[in-house]
Amino acid sequence: MTNLFLDAISAEKANIENHLKKYLDLLHIPGVLHDAMEYSLSAGGKRLRPFLAIAVCEMLGKPRELIMPYACALEFIHTFSLIHDDLPALDNDDLRRGKPSCHKAFREDIAILAGDALNTDAFSLLFEFGEGNLKKAGKYFAKAVGGRGMTLGQVYDCTIPENERTVEKLDFINYYKTSELFIAATAGAAAWLDAADDEISALEEYASNLGIAFQIADDILDITSTTEKLGKKVGSDAALNKVTYPVLIGIEGAQKAVADRVGRAEAALEPLKGNRWFEVFKGFGEYIRDIMAKNS
Amino acid sequence: MTNLFLDAISAEKANIENHLKKYLDLLHIPGVLHDAMEYSLSAGGKRLRPFLAIAVCEMLGKPRELIMPYACALEFIHTFSLIHDDLPALDNDDLRRGKPSCHKAFREDIAILAGDALNTDAFSLLFEFGEGNLKKAGKYFAKAVGGRGMTLGQVYDCTIPENERTVEKLDFINYYKTSELFIAATAGAAAWLDAADDEISALEEYASNLGIAFQIADDILDITSTTEKLGKKVGSDAALNKVTYPVLIGIEGAQKAVADRVGRAEAALEPLKGNRWFEVFKGFGEYIRDIMAKNS
Repeated sequence: MTNLFLDAISAEKANIENHLKKYLDLLHIPGVLHDAMEYSLSAGGKRLRPFLAIAVCEMLGKPRELIMPYACALEFIHTFSLIHDDLPALDNDDLRRGKPSCHKAFREDIAILAGDALNTDAFSLLFEFGEGNLKKAGKYFAKAVGGRGMTLGQVYDCTIPENERTVEKLDFINYYKTSELFIAATAGAAAWLDAADDEISALEEYASNLGIAFQIADDILDITSTTEKLGKKVGSDAALNKVTYPVLIGIEGAQKAVADRVGRAEAALEPLKGNRWFEVFKGFGEYIRDIMAKNS
Repeated sequence: MTNLFLDAISAEKANIENHLKKYLDLLHIPGVLHDAMEYSLSAGGKRLRPFLAIAVCEMLGKPRELIMPYACALEFIHTFSLIHDDLPALDNDDLRRGKPSCHKAFREDIAILAGDALNTDAFSLLFEFGEGNLKKAGKYFAKAVGGRGMTLGQVYDCTIPENERTVEKLDFINYYKTSELFIAATAGAAAWLDAADDEISALEEYASNLGIAFQIADDILDITSTTEKLGKKVGSDAALNKVTYPVLIGIEGAQKAVADRVGRAEAALEPLKGNRWFEVFKGFGEYIRDIMAKNS
């Protein structure tokens, strides 16, 4: 069975990666700082967040080029967060997508500063190459990233002890760590494109639920899948004694929670139905449900 | 002899610190992340960068409240840079202004994330509390901070070997490390306030020269002053075998370089003369010359 979401994200990947390279080059950052930023920006990944912003642009029928600086700014932020998450003082991961993480390929000081530059220069893309609604979207964007968003989620994840984690606390951590940047990628993108407030709210509700579903599905696969099927190492949560959804309420309970969140995300989007791109958004939810089934 | 710059900066300090606290509170960041951000934001310092932005506002005759979010965003950035500079992988400083540095008072992971949040939420202040020219000033601001500004300066300082440092390379490092944020504090503030392009250019030239003068003066005092006179530890450059201006061209040569840079800064500002705040800006240059004399 074909999934419109998977088809569409595959079709966009090269375009997103070309734009990431183009904007980084336009900033004219010299030497090792440029190299470290490019190393991590070009390390692959699904390009999910920029894709979501492009899908919002298409769903709203706006010109594609209008969203590209905003879409790439999201990937700058996502990349900065991965570089800092991998640092020895945080997750201490030597590998990222099968390659040495930034602080291993370069040095720890360079990795910290490359993350800092990607964080700041995400805003350079908005200020210098963007023609969207800067004030409205910028507010969403900065809120989703800083001390009320993704960075706060990371602090929660670093400070809430495993033995105190409940389903409610996991939702809370996942919301800040993942949903917030999904919200920037959808509701924030809509704000950038001057969408109506009810469209922005619908996308916020969609992204909030899908972000949480995405994380729970990831936790399930870490238990039920194999390294071959998933294409990345499994079993790392158990090795670290991490308290995740499946640990708290079992695999089936966690699968039900994913289905519930996907259902809520799809329901939130109903007012926006009417074109092919609406089906792409629905396809993202289906994809999350499918990967659980296929890889388990 | 009285110095208008010193009088004015003393008169503003409490107002700046009240606004820093106000904006941080308005962001409603919870828990330890808030505490770490507040700890470093309230650790003192001259508040030079927000003061420069306020002085630009007064010189241009614009309403004071218009500049406060921008002024405080500069101090968010300066504080983020100090937190990350003090990290073990960079300068590894356990103390900052006589108090434990952020990663000692909290933890290294929290300090990295508090720096990240201050970096991002500096932009939140611009987007949420500002009524200035967001697009024009935002471009100056992000450029001065990211991979083409302060962060690039830090990379140069981490990667250019001491034995390869020449006067030209030191100017280069000092320009990126210090002048860039001075430019954001003056030319960027003027852009925020919709100043004319020739006013913005004059302030950029002023800040570029004073940033370099400021760093050379600091290097001189590290040799010629005493801990009692200066109120901070001296001799640390020599202890680390740092190649600074005085090492390369002697104390007198370095003092002449400072005087030259201050003269160029003052000359750049001539077109703006006409009110008391112009004298404040000149006072900053005089102050840099004076501290060399008084504390040597």
